[in-house]
Amino acid sequence: MEPNGQQFHVVGSRVPRVDALEKVTGRARYTADVHLPGLLYGVFVRSPYAHARITRIDVSKARALPGVMAVMTQQDLTEDQALVIQEEVHATRRVLNLFATDKVTYQGQKIAAIAAVSREIAEDAVRLVEVEYDPLPAYIDPRDAAKPETTMIYDDRQPVIGPHGETLHNVAGESHHQIGDVDQGFRDADRIFEDTYIVHRAHQTYIEPQSCIAEVGPDGKVTVWSSTQGHFAVRANISSSLGIPLSQINSIGMTIGGGFGAKFGGIIDTYAVLLAQKTRRPVKIVYTREEEFLDARPAPGAVITIKTGVTHDGTITARQAFALWDPGIGSGGCGATGRIQGVYSIPNVKWDAYDIHTNKPAPGAYRAPGAPQATFASESQLNRIAHELGIDPVELRLKNMREGDQVDFKATLKAVADHVGWWQREHDTGPNQGWGVAVGEWTNGAGPGAAVVSIHEDGSVSVFSGLMDITGTDSAMAVIAAEVLGVEYQRVKVIRGDTDSAPYATASGGSVITFSMGNAVLRAAEEARERILALAAEQFAVPVDRLELRDGQVVDRDHPENAMSLAEAARLGMRTIGGPIVGRGAFAAQPSATTIAAQIAKVEVNPDTGQVRLLKYVGSLDVGRAIYALGVEGQMEGGAVQGFSWGLMEQMQYAIDGRNANPNLLDYRIPTAMDVPYVESVLVEVPTKNGPFGCKGVGEPPIAPGIAVVAGAIHDAIGVWCNEAPITPERVVMACQERKDGVRG
Amino acid sequence: MEPNGQQFHVVGSRVPRVDALEKVTGRARYTADVHLPGLLYGVFVRSPYAHARITRIDVSKARALPGVMAVMTQQDLTEDQALVIQEEVHATRRVLNLFATDKVTYQGQKIAAIAAVSREIAEDAVRLVEVEYDPLPAYIDPRDAAKPETTMIYDDRQPVIGPHGETLHNVAGESHHQIGDVDQGFRDADRIFEDTYIVHRAHQTYIEPQSCIAEVGPDGKVTVWSSTQGHFAVRANISSSLGIPLSQINSIGMTIGGGFGAKFGGIIDTYAVLLAQKTRRPVKIVYTREEEFLDARPAPGAVITIKTGVTHDGTITARQAFALWDPGIGSGGCGATGRIQGVYSIPNVKWDAYDIHTNKPAPGAYRAPGAPQATFASESQLNRIAHELGIDPVELRLKNMREGDQVDFKATLKAVADHVGWWQREHDTGPNQGWGVAVGEWTNGAGPGAAVVSIHEDGSVSVFSGLMDITGTDSAMAVIAAEVLGVEYQRVKVIRGDTDSAPYATASGGSVITFSMGNAVLRAAEEARERILALAAEQFAVPVDRLELRDGQVVDRDHPENAMSLAEAARLGMRTIGGPIVGRGAFAAQPSATTIAAQIAKVEVNPDTGQVRLLKYVGSLDVGRAIYALGVEGQMEGGAVQGFSWGLMEQMQYAIDGRNANPNLLDYRIPTAMDVPYVESVLVEVPTKNGPFGCKGVGEPPIAPGIAVVAGAIHDAIGVWCNEAPITPERVVMACQERKDGVRG
Repeated sequence: MEPNGQQFHVVGSRVPRVDALEKVTGRARYTADVHLPGLLYGVFVRSPYAHARITRIDVSKARALPGVMAVMTQQDLTEDQALVIQEEVHATRRVLNLFATDKVTYQGQKIAAIAAVSREIAEDAVRLVEVEYDPLPAYIDPRDAAKPETTMIYDDRQPVIGPHGETLHNVAGESHHQIGDVDQGFRDADRIFEDTYIVHRAHQTYIEPQSCIAEVGPDGKVTVWSSTQGHFAVRANISSSLGIPLSQINSIGMTIGGGFGAKFGGIIDTYAVLLAQKTRRPVKIVYTREEEFLDARPAPGAVITIKTGVTHDGTITARQAFALWDPGIGSGGCGATGRIQGVYSIPNVKWDAYDIHTNKPAPGAYRAPGAPQATFASESQLNRIAHELGIDPVELRLKNMREGDQVDFKATLKAVADHVGWWQREHDTGPNQGWGVAVGEWTNGAGPGAAVVSIHEDGSVSVFSGLMDITGTDSAMAVIAAEVLGVEYQRVKVIRGDTDSAPYATASGGSVITFSMGNAVLRAAEEARERILALAAEQFAVPVDRLELRDGQVVDRDHPENAMSLAEAARLGMRTIGGPIVGRGAFAAQPSATTIAAQIAKVEVNPDTGQVRLLKYVGSLDVGRAIYALGVEGQMEGGAVQGFSWGLMEQMQYAIDGRNANPNLLDYRIPTAMDVPYVESVLVEVPTKNGPFGCKGVGEPPIAPGIAVVAGAIHDAIGVWCNEAPITPERVVMACQERKDGVRG
Repeated sequence: MEPNGQQFHVVGSRVPRVDALEKVTGRARYTADVHLPGLLYGVFVRSPYAHARITRIDVSKARALPGVMAVMTQQDLTEDQALVIQEEVHATRRVLNLFATDKVTYQGQKIAAIAAVSREIAEDAVRLVEVEYDPLPAYIDPRDAAKPETTMIYDDRQPVIGPHGETLHNVAGESHHQIGDVDQGFRDADRIFEDTYIVHRAHQTYIEPQSCIAEVGPDGKVTVWSSTQGHFAVRANISSSLGIPLSQINSIGMTIGGGFGAKFGGIIDTYAVLLAQKTRRPVKIVYTREEEFLDARPAPGAVITIKTGVTHDGTITARQAFALWDPGIGSGGCGATGRIQGVYSIPNVKWDAYDIHTNKPAPGAYRAPGAPQATFASESQLNRIAHELGIDPVELRLKNMREGDQVDFKATLKAVADHVGWWQREHDTGPNQGWGVAVGEWTNGAGPGAAVVSIHEDGSVSVFSGLMDITGTDSAMAVIAAEVLGVEYQRVKVIRGDTDSAPYATASGGSVITFSMGNAVLRAAEEARERILALAAEQFAVPVDRLELRDGQVVDRDHPENAMSLAEAARLGMRTIGGPIVGRGAFAAQPSATTIAAQIAKVEVNPDTGQVRLLKYVGSLDVGRAIYALGVEGQMEGGAVQGFSWGLMEQMQYAIDGRNANPNLLDYRIPTAMDVPYVESVLVEVPTKNGPFGCKGVGEPPIAPGIAVVAGAIHDAIGVWCNEAPITPERVVMACQERKDGVRG
């Protein structure tokens, strides 16, 4: 029995994932597992330079290589008459800009795409493509790229005047915001803190690289198999980029080996379709790990200067930030600077943030996009303020925290503090050991989607939709259907349809799925339940409100002898005018509630080597309602690990010439099992009004506080503030050295 | 504008089939096209004898052949512990009877199943299986098998006493019926006719043979790809025969190359699943054409003696029949004897019919099962009566025809007669030429099914269901959805789901689909339409009843400036709480109306060679409403061809020892393009109450009258009655000879 009197039979129970067996037995089918007759392999010719003019491209030798079926450059998109579909659709032809022609702006930029009968031949052909370059200086730090003495990476960009009258170059986008009067706020403060925090680019490092297969039918119909978080998004992207009608595209989402925001399409699927259209054969493109680092869509870096005014008792009076984000040749990111307000009541807030072009690939979403970077600045500085004011960092946060709606921020923070024994932590702290705390806020989105629930003749249930499960959400859907229909969780199958067969489903990003698709499934199951109860009521000749569904049966509360199994109901439905029992549910948008992830780490730092060992890592989260409990914990653990590993080790490193220095998983460090402590999760459940059974999206918030948590713990252990993440051993040693040298600390 | 004031924009129009392009370009994917990693090939060890005792089976050499992964006999079903799924499900084990053990009862009966890494190795293994037989006499004619001096093919059968006190052996089933008092009816008659009609077994001769692939997953879940008229039926069969829960089976219906009643599962899928369970590898079984003739489920033969009393003016006073059907070792067929009543008002009717075991494979359904055989007897005799009484055979029928409900029998018959110029036919009749007429009645069934209609963001529409299209019904579904939603036919995609993803759909047999699934699609489209109109009404702030859907737009009848495309509506739906526009419709059972196919042939007979040339063949049918007009005509033409080719050439021939003498398409004759005249179709449309837009099932009735039509035409041409079908040249010559000899005529 839940506190609010609602009793659940499946929601919140610790059932196994619906796809556990297929995953552990290796039977799950990923995109690279798909083989089609006549399959070609697609690879790319890429720029070795981060910034250069192209003086010559000659693909003739590559085209002549036996086994090469197509070599495509930007010229083909402009001239090739074989790409008939585009021309049939558009009266006037729109030329896509998919390959570099006269200039490359990052290392790995695509210059040509090649399809051949084997990957080996395709790679041979890459070496036969002759490209001549005239190298240009590369910008890798947004602070450098923004300087007025730089040339513009994109010739058409104009200088921008910054908040302090400075001239900013290479501005790709900007974001400004103001609440109250920060100048007054700073005047009201007893102390003002100003710090600059730097976060470097991180790659989402999903295990399965970008993968796609495209095939074109005799009628021009495109079928695409891909590793994606949203096959409807893939369909939309291909449709809009190539001008193919939606109805002429079937997008099939295969089992996905991780996405974390980087798999919504556009990176390789467009190319696979073009090569398939050109060759009229299916084309498979699977990225290598190196390609992932050179030409995928990683998280942007950021340099955030943050200024906070506080009174002696720790009340925040004003907060201001100036941020330069590093979106490479793309844009996006700087808007996340707004996270500096967090869930605190701050009367005066102002930020000015800019996306500054550098010679790096465009960025993409990575779990709570922008939140880890901005939260690092915001929460790290709070830890420093607490330390300087002599206030406990948990207390400082509780003091400034606002009250939330359908959420309990303070309870969430207290929960994790209580769980780790925060208040007695001095009894559990050895030499060079320390504790860090931080919170990260997030509000899940909502997206449109529909689902169909069928009751089979054996009483089993299937849930059909277009939802892509990247995190265990299929299991949550099974829980929801089982809960509504009063059947065992194991009796529910969750089936994914392609875009031809399934109703629309929103893509799996923004922590939307359990909230949005969960609502669709809830409604579909409710519609099926209504039908079942109506059938039974007619059969028993009793009022429908006397009936309930439980244990796979319809039972009459007053006359238990009136009982009908779900299987009987399904078979009865088949004999009525109304037909088989099928429920349909749809959902689009209703607001959710902001939630916070609060995390505490205990570390031990070796001040000589700079090595940081995580001894304990505990997170709490107000999940609204843990529908699929193991999945919620999985998200809390996975998010926490990604957060602290960005804080300790993950960085895409760029040499002075703009080339990526660690484009592989040997040199780009992600945590191994040896780096990760047992991560504990504390669930707080304050239900939302609109989430199914009160749930909130839980996927993203747990990544947000991690960098600040470890930075705080390191300071607590050895007394140095490291403001540049990841806080590698080298940076720890340097920070210790700087303190000795009196530079800071 | 239709007569009843209903105006259609797509219903009845001559649009192309939705699957035309994939069929003509060879891109449609049939079961045999499916290839899976590790695929094994399944073949059978079969009895060369029609009737024999088995004295020894030794599979050891076959099992030892490299590449053979399984050799399965009945012993395995009884003993093999590897078939774990069965044991998990049933507390007590039920042993299936799938292979012969001590006795074979027809040539081709399965004795063992072999799975090997190639079909060649599997066939080598077949030759290594040692089976010793002790042959028994075989029965091939039900009249012989029924005699009291025969032994029973099944030891446990008891003799049955027939209607005239005779002892009948080998009775597999019986059917009796009586209306009024036939003895009195015959006493009221001026003349009594008694004739015996013989129809031989015919094979459905679908182009694609029986094909199935089965795979078993790590959790025991079975996936089956098959050529079937109903993948839900396949799922149910496998579940009930092997004791596997429905939810542990995913049945995938592939594009089907003809079925005509013979592809509801059970012939090979059970074996493919067993071999896959045993080997834990996917197993493919594809019948050869010879296996089709030896061990599929063809239409039963029949010997029907029919006695009819008439007054001088042609009024039928009584009709009685005694029939022996030939179901081989199975049963079923004799109930169709009831077709002798047809759509005539006959006050006194009686029939006694028996299924008599012979040493042949069990029968299956073939398009209007039993109707062609019984209609041959019924309608041929009417032609003889008309001739003997000097009454026009069309007039004789019109005189005796009853009035139907939601149907016009007489108009249907008159329509075809008028179309061919029946009443002036003597002006169009050369030497040895003649005209034949007959009618066949049928009432389509209804079955449970559901469908989901989605409106996509580009305004295109998809219809998703589990319906198997064997005859163009997908195109009918597209017409229905397009009609309801006011969009172009080409904007509707019809998508088939497997049993995991699609809601239940009834199997495609009994002419149920357009009637039943059409109703489901109609309701789903209506639900989507309601949502679209409600969205638009809210957007325009106008009453919903002022809005209508046409030309892909919602328009306000009073204010045409209020217009919204379906694409806009779909996108609007995605932004509302209600979510994407998805309609769900279901149907199970409502009665349809009886219809008749009336057909007229003109033939020319060479009395010396017995060769019959069809000069003209025209059919009419009260279709209720021709939803997909080209498909309706295709059914009328295809059914007519199958009917007259059974009448002229199709016969499964059995030697005296029970062996099939023509198990191939060289010796089993089906019509080529040279044998088929231009078949014309005349559509009559008297709508039914319950069919979508008034439609009736049209697949089956057109096969019913064919045999009687050609028999009548042959008599009209050369004056001989041929009462044994097919009326091959040999039989025509023999009939001419008998007439010369004075035996009959």
